[in-house]
Amino acid sequence: MQPIKVYADRRSQPSRAVIIFCRVNQIDFEEITVDLFKSQHLTAEFRKINPTGQVPAIVDGRFKLYESHAILRYLASVFPGVADHWYPADLFTRAKIESILDWHHSNLRRGAATLVMHTALAPFLGLATSPDAVKQAEKLLMQSLGRIESVWLKDDAKFLLGSPQPSIADLSLVCEIMQLEILIWMDNVKKATSPHFEEAHELLFQVKASRLNNAAAANQTSEPSTKLKIVSKL
Amino acid sequence: MQPIKVYADRRSQPSRAVIIFCRVNQIDFEEITVDLFKSQHLTAEFRKINPTGQVPAIVDGRFKLYESHAILRYLASVFPGVADHWYPADLFTRAKIESILDWHHSNLRRGAATLVMHTALAPFLGLATSPDAVKQAEKLLMQSLGRIESVWLKDDAKFLLGSPQPSIADLSLVCEIMQLEILIWMDNVKKATSPHFEEAHELLFQVKASRLNNAAAANQTSEPSTKLKIVSKL
Repeated sequence: MQPIKVYADRRSQPSRAVIIFCRVNQIDFEEITVDLFKSQHLTAEFRKINPTGQVPAIVDGRFKLYESHAILRYLASVFPGVADHWYPADLFTRAKIESILDWHHSNLRRGAATLVMHTALAPFLGLATSPDAVKQAEKLLMQSLGRIESVWLKDDAKFLLGSPQPSIADLSLVCEIMQLEILIWMDNVKKATSPHFEEAHELLFQVKASRLNNAAAANQTSEPSTKLKIVSKL
Repeated sequence: MQPIKVYADRRSQPSRAVIIFCRVNQIDFEEITVDLFKSQHLTAEFRKINPTGQVPAIVDGRFKLYESHAILRYLASVFPGVADHWYPADLFTRAKIESILDWHHSNLRRGAATLVMHTALAPFLGLATSPDAVKQAEKLLMQSLGRIESVWLKDDAKFLLGSPQPSIADLSLVCEIMQLEILIWMDNVKKATSPHFEEAHELLFQVKASRLNNAAAANQTSEPSTKLKIVSKL
């Protein structure tokens, strides 16, 4: 069988979620890097794969698909080797996971991605940053982390919804906040998907290291305080 | 069988989508109004139904669920009377619908809801409006409408993805932009779900009428130009 093609940039959280999912479930895939910093996602060639110009996207034979949650659902459904806990067939459990996946878009993702964009990526991309946007994003992020903790991880749950094993919602949400180093829950997911988790996040660590170096050089102080606040929340 | 409970405010687009879906599929339900303008979504009582404090939410026996897309998927899956075209069992067709549902959150919804909030609802809710936010939301909305037209409705498709019948993605996206009066595609969905579509939107027409009256009184001119721009786009 031909391996599926995964178009990804490991700087993108949803790209990492799809790569980790394939690795941990031994889905044969070919990773094709679409370098966001080189605007490769905006080329006519890539738009034939995904007209919205976003990563990740997959091609499975003649079938093309984008949006990471849709990709994770699809992979969990068509590959018989994927264990049920990732995307349970039980309609009630599945519905609860869908609810978290949908919530993610307008809450955790919006908060975390905006914050990361304005504090970490904008300097690389030559974009202007907005203190107001950072403030709003921080607020939404803190609210979202609070929700995860008090609703879906309550009573010291190991994974979301108190499940003993991770679902695609765990993977998607953890990849979103990987940059923020929230440790306990993330460690559970890491261990359950090791060593593929570490491998897929390698590039992120490099970007972070070079950024910390730059920040030290510029004597930038705003980032540690944000991180501290967020770590203390969980 | 006990009817399901639908907690909704018809001012909310996702609330209307769920109500229309139940009606058109003859799902027995009891509608419980959660008045957003009276902050009924923030009460301790409602937070027992949905800890995120958002409408819509449903209760089916002992099972509680929120997030409209998750609710639509659930209803389509557990009620055998729901026709397959709403949420197709075929994994490839379903995956394409999932992709649109996921895309919706960070694009059409974010643009449309922000625009409606800042131009139509903020005065009712006593909130400040931001010209910058309106400008950004308009841009995202126009981009999103362009995408719908050029990708999922291309070649004069009757419904998204060129389907001859609507899916839950059609319903969700149309309810989102109902306020904006984009006519051709909306008419197709309206006809396929009539008269439940009109009935569920009654309150919206009332809010709109009173708003237009207020606007006329205040000689406000910004709204018609936005509407014209958006209508001319499709």
